[in-house]
Formats: sequence, C-alpha cells, structure tokens
Amino acid sequence: MSKYDHIQEAAYEANRQLPKLGLVLFTFGNVSAADRDLGVFAIKPSGVPYSDLSPEKMVIVDFEGKTVKGKLRPSSDTLTHAVLYKHWPNIGGIAHTHSTYATAWAQSQRDIPIFGTTHADHNTVDIPCAPPMNDEMILGDYEYQTGFQILNAFRDRGLNYEEVEMVLIGNHAPFTWGKTPEKAVYNSAVLESVAQMAYLTEQIRNDAPRLKDSLIKKHYERKHGPHSYYGQ
Amino acid sequence: MSKYDHIQEAAYEANRQLPKLGLVLFTFGNVSAADRDLGVFAIKPSGVPYSDLSPEKMVIVDFEGKTVKGKLRPSSDTLTHAVLYKHWPNIGGIAHTHSTYATAWAQSQRDIPIFGTTHADHNTVDIPCAPPMNDEMILGDYEYQTGFQILNAFRDRGLNYEEVEMVLIGNHAPFTWGKTPEKAVYNSAVLESVAQMAYLTEQIRNDAPRLKDSLIKKHYERKHGPHSYYGQ
Amino acid sequence: MSKYDHIQEAAYEANRQLPKLGLVLFTFGNVSAADRDLGVFAIKPSGVPYSDLSPEKMVIVDFEGKTVKGKLRPSSDTLTHAVLYKHWPNIGGIAHTHSTYATAWAQSQRDIPIFGTTHADHNTVDIPCAPPMNDEMILGDYEYQTGFQILNAFRDRGLNYEEVEMVLIGNHAPFTWGKTPEKAVYNSAVLESVAQMAYLTEQIRNDAPRLKDSLIKKHYERKHGPHSYYGQ
Amino acid sequence: MSKYDHIQEAAYEANRQLPKLGLVLFTFGNVSAADRDLGVFAIKPSGVPYSDLSPEKMVIVDFEGKTVKGKLRPSSDTLTHAVLYKHWPNIGGIAHTHSTYATAWAQSQRDIPIFGTTHADHNTVDIPCAPPMNDEMILGDYEYQTGFQILNAFRDRGLNYEEVEMVLIGNHAPFTWGKTPEKAVYNSAVLESVAQMAYLTEQIRNDAPRLKDSLIKKHYERKHGPHSYYGQ
Repeated sequence: MSKYDHIQEAAYEANRQLPKLGLVLFTFGNVSAADRDLGVFAIKPSGVPYSDLSPEKMVIVDFEGKTVKGKLRPSSDTLTHAVLYKHWPNIGGIAHTHSTYATAWAQSQRDIPIFGTTHADHNTVDIPCAPPMNDEMILGDYEYQTGFQILNAFRDRGLNYEEVEMVLIGNHAPFTWGKTPEKAVYNSAVLESVAQMAYLTEQIRNDAPRLKDSLIKKHYERKHGPHSYYGQ
Repeated sequence: MSKYDHIQEAAYEANRQLPKLGLVLFTFGNVSAADRDLGVFAIKPSGVPYSDLSPEKMVIVDFEGKTVKGKLRPSSDTLTHAVLYKHWPNIGGIAHTHSTYATAWAQSQRDIPIFGTTHADHNTVDIPCAPPMNDEMILGDYEYQTGFQILNAFRDRGLNYEEVEMVLIGNHAPFTWGKTPEKAVYNSAVLESVAQMAYLTEQIRNDAPRLKDSLIKKHYERKHGPHSYYGQ
Repeated sequence: MSKYDHIQEAAYEANRQLPKLGLVLFTFGNVSAADRDLGVFAIKPSGVPYSDLSPEKMVIVDFEGKTVKGKLRPSSDTLTHAVLYKHWPNIGGIAHTHSTYATAWAQSQRDIPIFGTTHADHNTVDIPCAPPMNDEMILGDYEYQTGFQILNAFRDRGLNYEEVEMVLIGNHAPFTWGKTPEKAVYNSAVLESVAQMAYLTEQIRNDAPRLKDSLIKKHYERKHGPHSYYGQ
Repeated sequence: MSKYDHIQEAAYEANRQLPKLGLVLFTFGNVSAADRDLGVFAIKPSGVPYSDLSPEKMVIVDFEGKTVKGKLRPSSDTLTHAVLYKHWPNIGGIAHTHSTYATAWAQSQRDIPIFGTTHADHNTVDIPCAPPMNDEMILGDYEYQTGFQILNAFRDRGLNYEEVEMVLIGNHAPFTWGKTPEKAVYNSAVLESVAQMAYLTEQIRNDAPRLKDSLIKKHYERKHGPHSYYGQ
C-alpha cells in the first residue's frame, strides 16, 4: 500500500482503454492521473506495451516533471503533462495519442471546423491546432516547450481549458484532458470521431458551412449549461 | 411483472444492437419501442452506457413526452420520438444514432443520392436531409421541434413515412423508424452502409448518375411490392 | 442422407464465410455450390440470416432455376446463378455480395483499373463492369436477364470466364465464381481488397498509370501459368 | 531438435503477427528470420494459410536462395529476401505484405511524404518508392531482381538501410526489415499507419507541407540518437 495507489490504479485503467478504443498502435499514446493534494501525477512508463502494464509500473512524477517514485522511465511526453497540470489547476487527467484522423488534421496544420451537433455536444469552437514550434523551442527542452505551445495557443485565442478539453499540435498529434483520466480518454475518442466526420463532411461537400451559432449554443448547453438535461 | 414488460424488453434488446452494429460511440444513440394500445413507448435512459442497461431501466413515456414510469431520466431526444409516434400511427420503433457516414452527409446538408440497388432495395428516393431548424425553433422546445422538422420535410416533399423509413437532420444526424424497434435499428445500419457507398461512389466518379427509374422500381418492388419475392 | 448432402454442406460453409470476411451486412449476399453430374446447385434460402443457416436449409435448384428440393424459397438471385452454371460448364461455385468498395465501383459504372500486382496475381485485365440493363430486360425476368448481362459483357469483351472470375453489374454489385464455392468466396474477398486499393490509388494520384504489360503477365503467370511456382 | 529451431520459431511467431495486425488478406504476406552465423534464414512456405503454420513448416534457405531444409516450397518472394540478407549484413528479419494503404501508395508510384512526428519517430526521409523494374529485369529472374531494385533505390538516393527500414516497390507493395523479424513486422504496421495518415493529410489539405527539418531531427533522435530517451 502507498499513498499513490489510487492514481496508479486510475492511470493504469485509463491507459488500458486506449487500445480498446482503437486509439493507439503499439505504444503510441499515454495517459496520466493527477492528485492535486499530493502535487503529483501517475503516468505510463515509456515504450511499455499496454498489455504489459500494471498499476505499480505507473511512474509518479511531480508538476515540475521530476520523478518521485518508480523504477521505470516515465513517458517521453511527461514534461508536457507536467506543464499542463502546473498551469491548469482544475484538470485531473491528460491523454495523448496518435489516433489516425486527429493526427491527419494535426499534420495538415488546420483547426477542425465545427460542422455538427456531435462536435457541439462537446465544444463550441473549432478544435484548435497549435502551430508547430519555432526552431529555438524545438532545440530547447522539447516536451516542456510543447506544454507551453498548448498554453500559448489557448491564451492567444482566449480559450478556456475547462470548456475546450482538446488540442492538436501542428505536425504532431492530439492532447486531451479532463477532470479525471477517464474523461481525458473519453475526449480522445470523441475527438477522433469528430475528426473523421469533419474529414468526410468536406469530402462530401467541399464548401460545407460551419454549424450556426444558435445550434452550437443549444447543443453545448443541453449537455453542459446551468440547465443541462443530458445524463442522470 | 408489469404491462410494460414487453416494450421494455424490446427497447432493451434494440438498444444493445447499436454498439454491436458499430453505429454508436459511448452513449451517442437511442432506440424506443411503442405500444399503440397503451399509448406509450419505452426509451433508453439518458447518458447510460449500453453495457449498463437492463429492461427495467427503460423509461416509459407517453406520446406527449411525459414520463409515465421510470426512475431514470429518459433520453434527451425523447420529445422527438414522441412527436413522431403521435403523428405517424403505423410505426412501432424509432432509432437515433450519430453513425459516421450518415452523420457526415447530415453535416453536409445534402440528400443521399440513390446510386444503386442496395439503396433501391429499401427506398425509391434520395434519402432526405431536413434543413437545419430556424433560430426560433432552436430556441424554443428544441427536441420537440426536431420532430416537427422531420414531419415538415416529409410533408413538403410528399414522402410517405411507411415507405421511406429514414431521414437526416441537417448538421445533426439520422433518425430511422419502422414497424418494430428491431426494424428501426436495421434501418440505421442500412442507412450507414448506403451512406458510405454513396460517398465512395462520388469519390470514384464525381458525376456518377442516379439509378434509373426502371431499376429503382424493380428492386423496391421485388422486396416490398404486392408481388414481392424476397425472404420467406 | 441424400445425394445432395455434399453440395448443401459446401454451400453452407461458403455462405458462413461471407460475414466472417466482412463482405455482407445482414442477409445481403449468397453463395451456391453446384454438382455437375446431378445438374443442380445448392443455394442460400432468401432473407435468412447467416447465423440461422444449416446445411439442410440450402435449397436445391436445377440449371433452369427450378427448385428440386427444399422447403424454403431460394435466394432472389437464384436465376442469375442458374444462367451462369448453364452456360459456363467449368464453374462449381458462385458468390454474390454487396461488399462496400466493389459496390461503389459498380455504382460508378466503371471498370476497376489494374494498378498493381495484387490485382495481376488474379487477373490480367481491368475488372469488367457490365452496363446496367436496358428497360426491357429489367421489366422482363430480371434476375434471369442479369445472368445474360454478365454473359454478354464477357462475350463482347472477349473475356474468358475461367481466367477472369469476377464482374461488377453496373449500379448493382459484384458476382464472383470459381471451380468451387470456396474459391468463389475467396474471389469476392480479393475483389473487395483490390477495389479498395484502386480507389485509394486514384485518390493519392489522380493520373495513376495502369500496370505495365510485362508485370501483368509475370504476376499472373507465376500464380496461374504452366510454370507457376506459387503455393504447394 | 535442430540447429534451425530458433529461427523457425521466430519466423513462425512473426508470420502469425501479420493477420493479428490486420496487414494481410489470406496468404498475401511473408516474414523471414535469419541466422547470420549459419548463413541461412527461415521463411514462410508459399500459399499456406497463417492458421495452418507451425515452426517446423518454416523453410530453411541460404543467402543464395537455395533451400537447405524443408519439405514445403518456400514463399515465392524468397529470392528477394535472399538478396537483401546477402547485401545488408546487419538485418535479421524481413517482412513483405500487401497492406492496404502502403500498397495504394506503391501503386501510385509515389514516395510517402514525411508529414508528421509519427513518421519522424521512425525515419528522417520520405519513405522511398522504388520505380517499377524495366522489362528485362521482369522477364529475367523476377524476385531476384526485385531485391536489386531495392538495393539500387537505396544506393541511388544515398539511403542507409539501418536507418530507413522500409521501402515501397512501385506497382507492387512494401518490404520492411530490421534487426529481428519482430522488428520487421513492427515496421510493416508502422508503415501502414503512416501511409494512411499521409493519405488523409493530403485529402484534408492538398498542399500540406513536409515536416520541417528541426522537428524531423528532434523526433528521430529522441528515439534513435546517441542521447535517446524513449523506452526503457
């Protein structure tokens, strides 16, 4: 027994969801689970297949990115997770994948336009694609700077990370987050589905219009507004 | 035992088919089963995963949309179901999904052209896409108005709901129906397949011609006409 | 025990392969198995789900299309099978599906160009798409005429049915055949794969060139020529 | 017990991964495992379904392509494997598939552009597509010449086979390799994923830019450079 058991268990369960949801090939993704009181998060070890994971293999890292406990090396994306946890106080889980359609949008360096209510049930804006980093940032502490690239994109666009829980990194792939690691993984799957539908929508009609504001507002608020009536 | 057991069981079974047929992600779809004599339908509770459903969790609702029996909140789309049951006396089941290809067509606000006999085995017309609602309807009772948007699209185009058992809602997603909930789900799967094939057909040949009238008539009638000879 | 047991068993096994290979939705496909000495074939009953089939449910039909034995109604496509068996003496099995990519090519009324060696391992020509029938043929004995539409397409193009074991029917879907029902189903799966790759090839490069003759000949002959060296 | 047991077992296991990873239809692919000290490799027998394989069925062949041990005929692509083993001393496994997206790029005769970090995690260059062979090579010893076509493409472009472990053969399909047969199969799956994402990227943005050099270098080196920090 250790004080980290609950986040190791949560991170383990969330990482195991990635292959079940078809979001990863081999080891191309990772999820972390944070404990705000302890100021740490549990994250997948680097390069270990999902089928070989166990809760105790999850590495405990603080919000500066320093390993606190664990024999294995944490995910190579650990510093990106650390930066987001440090600056965004209300998130409890982060997921990163190279899921097919979301990654294709990231590679195209385009935001995903809001074309329908499936999207509006989760966001009221186009899903942002942060630009690729400049060479100085890349040559510096790359994964650390990736975190700031996300923070900067949200600041520059005036987005609220509690409302928009997903981002594309230009030429790279998506990150998603939420109050829990389970919600972060949920958001990765929603993003992949929305990315596929948006791709198909443009193929079917190359001048497909964005969803109109009244529908965006209606669908988002019925799930997330003060008078929401979705779920139990 | 209750007088609603049979429709709760039917709705439960039909909802469980949605993930098996690959038509839903998470909780993004719902099916209902009506009893015309009792004037009610059983529908999926809102936001509950399909794997957590049981017959007794299905909520009983009347054709005005009022909950008659059930501890859980019914699907957020319940009023759309109620409007269709109330105005279309010969349907016994309704299904709603956000299946990938059908939703992409809905997001493009285009009817699905009738390109082949797979389509003509089920319909003789392009699958209609109802236009997005005006802002007044959206700000009013949204799901209730969605039902009228469907009724109006069928009235304006002179379509018969007993022949054409599927519709796209512009920018939203499909609804399908039938004499039974099982048939409604069947129609959702057929629609998704037809939507994918129509998308591919246009990609392969951008001026692909509609199916000619003689073939439309032949295929529909061999399955549904007075001299049909398909099935047992 | 009956003299038809072996073809009923073969047809049953071959029909069961269709859903396993992802070639059919619901009941949208059928396979038959012929016995040349008895002058009959066993075929799937119409509209019966694959999971409800058993060998004894396969209907025995002669080459004129007349049911010889069986309580169930045979596939609605039975007459097409009968015509092909009658006119092409060296085939022992026929398969019909509405598989996604092959059907999309059929709906576009285009032959599938020979773009690579996967195709050339099985055929030396573009996979032919027979034109849609004229209205007189459609209004006549439709499934019977579908058989002649295939025969005519092969005759007009000078194709050999023992070399090219697959065809698309314009606006409809594919038929495939072979010395055995197992081979007919194999050809349906190969066709679907080749159809998907050809679609993608044109998307990746819209002026993709046909495979050159020397490669077509080489690949076909290493599998099928007098000096073939593929397989055991 | 024989001195070939270890490579037969390794080749068997690697071949079994092909269908599990969705990289092959029927028998359309093969993997080999080499023992450098013995100067031989074990390879899949030709045309045998993956489910019928066993370690002892793997055929032992030397680097000239001569069968050393085995009752079955080796894969028709054996000479291509032999040429690569003979000329590239540091590879221990080779895989060949007709996986859908990689084959479509091969059929288009295009290199796969490096669009993102998923690609850069494995290569620093566009994935090369060797041109189709000239007719003389095709009419000669075809599979033997296929090996030289790969060697020539790497020589002409100045590529290092230890860094770039994959190639497309124009109009044919991919070959991949690595220090072990397991790594060769891993590379086949990575290639298929990268090929699908590159296809989608161009569909989403037809002038999508190549990944910039600083990102290519960063991602490749964090996995493969002298200061790599990916994995355990």
